[in-house]
Amino acid sequence: MVQKAFDEIVRELDRIDADAFVHVGDRFDDLLRYFTDFSGPDRDYAFVFVAGRAILCAPRLFGEQARREFGGDDVRTSEHQTGATAPARAIETIREFADAERILVPSHISHRTATALEQHLELVTTDADFGRSRKTPDERAALAEVQEVAQRGMARSESILAETTIRDECLHWKGKLLTTERLRREVNAVLARHGVQDARNTVIGAGPSCADLHFTGEDEIHSGETILLDISPRGSRGYYGDVTRTFVVGDIGEWERATYDAVQDAQDAALETLDSGAGIRAETVHRSVSETLQNHGFEVGDVSVGMYHGTGHGVGRSLHESPSLSSDERLEVGNVVTVEPGVYDPERGGVRIEDLVVVTESGYENLTDYPRRIRPSPSR
Amino acid sequence: MVQKAFDEIVRELDRIDADAFVHVGDRFDDLLRYFTDFSGPDRDYAFVFVAGRAILCAPRLFGEQARREFGGDDVRTSEHQTGATAPARAIETIREFADAERILVPSHISHRTATALEQHLELVTTDADFGRSRKTPDERAALAEVQEVAQRGMARSESILAETTIRDECLHWKGKLLTTERLRREVNAVLARHGVQDARNTVIGAGPSCADLHFTGEDEIHSGETILLDISPRGSRGYYGDVTRTFVVGDIGEWERATYDAVQDAQDAALETLDSGAGIRAETVHRSVSETLQNHGFEVGDVSVGMYHGTGHGVGRSLHESPSLSSDERLEVGNVVTVEPGVYDPERGGVRIEDLVVVTESGYENLTDYPRRIRPSPSR
Repeated sequence: MVQKAFDEIVRELDRIDADAFVHVGDRFDDLLRYFTDFSGPDRDYAFVFVAGRAILCAPRLFGEQARREFGGDDVRTSEHQTGATAPARAIETIREFADAERILVPSHISHRTATALEQHLELVTTDADFGRSRKTPDERAALAEVQEVAQRGMARSESILAETTIRDECLHWKGKLLTTERLRREVNAVLARHGVQDARNTVIGAGPSCADLHFTGEDEIHSGETILLDISPRGSRGYYGDVTRTFVVGDIGEWERATYDAVQDAQDAALETLDSGAGIRAETVHRSVSETLQNHGFEVGDVSVGMYHGTGHGVGRSLHESPSLSSDERLEVGNVVTVEPGVYDPERGGVRIEDLVVVTESGYENLTDYPRRIRPSPSR
Repeated sequence: MVQKAFDEIVRELDRIDADAFVHVGDRFDDLLRYFTDFSGPDRDYAFVFVAGRAILCAPRLFGEQARREFGGDDVRTSEHQTGATAPARAIETIREFADAERILVPSHISHRTATALEQHLELVTTDADFGRSRKTPDERAALAEVQEVAQRGMARSESILAETTIRDECLHWKGKLLTTERLRREVNAVLARHGVQDARNTVIGAGPSCADLHFTGEDEIHSGETILLDISPRGSRGYYGDVTRTFVVGDIGEWERATYDAVQDAQDAALETLDSGAGIRAETVHRSVSETLQNHGFEVGDVSVGMYHGTGHGVGRSLHESPSLSSDERLEVGNVVTVEPGVYDPERGGVRIEDLVVVTESGYENLTDYPRRIRPSPSR
């Protein structure tokens, strides 16, 4: 998994004419996890690439875990390594292998780490992606696996919605009020049962709260209003899934129906554009979505009613990474992106439909296999 | 919740004679969450404290969430705010209120943020704790709530263990092999069902893998060996819980019994030391554990068999924060710390027993209410 990253490090070192690469961060640093496969401690540890060798420096208490997970050449542990001593450990390790002067570091490395390294070495910072956006077959398989579990979560919520009864215009399930929070917990329990974390990303809106793109609060769910479920969990290897569906229980109003149809058409248009595969500019996908929604009479852009977000983003070890479908970059083979048009009206509700796809030479492969339908059904 | 943090910022600004405080980070930055209560995007956003006002600068798509969650004075959103523009937004916001020259920032702020800020302002970095280690009653309640859910997870796993049958020396449950991974998923589903995230922290070891302090892999569980469960989930407000228990199913061997008794005695000794309450040096707690284990014939320190970790750490919005029970600081009212002696033998297994307690004026309050027993029982 990490070989691609190491190849990219070698290329960057050559390009910049630096002697070694260093990254220091904690378990929440996705780039560090990309380089190491190690989901280490919640304090700083160091990764060093020098003289063709990839070395992880970890506190001793994480030694067994490091040796289990690290995909590089060597794990060095030290009893006294704390977060604060990680830069010193990195310098020691470099010195063992090379008479380095100039080292490359990611630009988001912490200021205290940069200051500590700069006392001994010249730093060159980089915003390079190190090949993250071009997923290998192994990475695609990891993403597909998480997406499959996300869909199980979706199936669970859809069948709960299909089983609800309506009392005083509010959805009830198993005799009790079904709130967005209660529904979210059911979804998250399914994810957990399949070894995947909800990662605080299970967003469920009902009616107006669908327009709040990150609604994780508690809301009643009313008959006739849109119910938007966006599930973006994280698997044990650190890769995310991402799927969104929208439903309505009870009578479907004119706005809800028209919006649903428009968003579904917009997603079709996006996928049709992606049919051309690698080489097209990412923004053409967003443009096809915009045009379709505008043809349906909806506004797109910096608006309060309509579509006010991009069409998609890369997904990998970060939930949001390159490429963005609003950028003018050309799509490449192995890009994994969401395709998620949405239309919202803060007074009424919102509809979003989202799949996760891999860009191929001649088109795309959809990692999502989940029906699109406005009326919830008990069977996937 | 955030008032304490703001008071501490005012104090630090006075002490350092700085004109404003800035922090820039993403949703994974626990200090930023402590200042804001905002669990924002996975890219950088800015928090500014200037002229007595606490201001959050967020991307527009997170505006509703920011207004729902932020505990300060004002939320500024901007359509074009990306991670890279957050420092510029912070500077703009400061300039609106003050003719600032010298600003205070946390030392772990990213190097690129520091570099961007330094083009316009003089930076002073700080490692201050901003009162995080002294929990308010509201924070203690949040911690207690998560701890209660962690205990529900423990109760679930304990009753599963009590229901197991032994076949070929391996534990089986509901007719199938019970692995550490299968058990972990059951625990994590209970956490999710109660609105709490496992946060990738449910560590379950069996026999030798108990000695790997962060074992999240898959292992068979054998009759007679120690089964160590360490559950440290995170609640919706960002506070963690932390509880560990160790069990044995089947015949209990001499080593397992002796080790369990020693660790239980060591925990009792630690709690007895904590009975003196605020004012004692943290390391005296670790010392009482060491002495007790040594009296039982176990080694403590940089050893491969015995206790090779500290006795405890602070818990709050980070799973590991101040104070450490190995430090020479004096404990303060409101410190929330784990008390977790453990003894391990990589050839045989390991025992750890962990409670979470709040230091009070005259002693401590145990946030944990979970039986300590080596033989699993179906009822908590």
